[in-house]
Amino acid sequence: MSGSVKNSYYAVIFTSEMRASSVGYEEMAQAMLNLARKQPGYLGVETARGPDGTGITVSYWRTEHDIQAWRQNAEHGLAQEKGRQDWYSQYRVRVCKVEREYGNHPGEE
Amino acid sequence: MSGSVKNSYYAVIFTSEMRASSVGYEEMAQAMLNLARKQPGYLGVETARGPDGTGITVSYWRTEHDIQAWRQNAEHGLAQEKGRQDWYSQYRVRVCKVEREYGNHPGEE
Repeated sequence: MSGSVKNSYYAVIFTSEMRASSVGYEEMAQAMLNLARKQPGYLGVETARGPDGTGITVSYWRTEHDIQAWRQNAEHGLAQEKGRQDWYSQYRVRVCKVEREYGNHPGEE
Repeated sequence: MSGSVKNSYYAVIFTSEMRASSVGYEEMAQAMLNLARKQPGYLGVETARGPDGTGITVSYWRTEHDIQAWRQNAEHGLAQEKGRQDWYSQYRVRVCKVEREYGNHPGEE
């Protein structure tokens, strides 16, 4: 059930607290998910936001270079700026190397 | 704003899909958070579950050894067993090394 990861990959953990008003957020979030899917090295995404406004989005990427390219994507840059200014009271991004994984369903690797 | 991590640490990304019936889940989840806080090497936790039943919990730990010890904690073991049998239709655990991080508020490191 448990195992090391054969082909290494990376996870970007994005945690955020939403402000009370988040006009336009849902549309932008969906647009960014659609855009990310087209990026080189994109492997998948998982996202959840609770009723208290705490959100966690984890995206998975083949290499750190792919993550850097996504971070520097122009359209994504506008969304990041808007997020910082309007939507998130707090946010944090952690870039991580997946060392091992296990579970009861096939992963994205 | 951006920076590498001075003292390395680890993230455990736990993603799950809840079954429709989850009797006893909330109490157990809260008990496990309280128990984790007392474990050696525990640095913090972030958790979110959306209305569709998708949940993401990320816990942060000083070392991989601390993660292993928490995984093998007896009381936690009972909760894991109950989760697999009763609460989660799917779950996946990824153990990750945090390589770098940035954001607009102090992290847990």
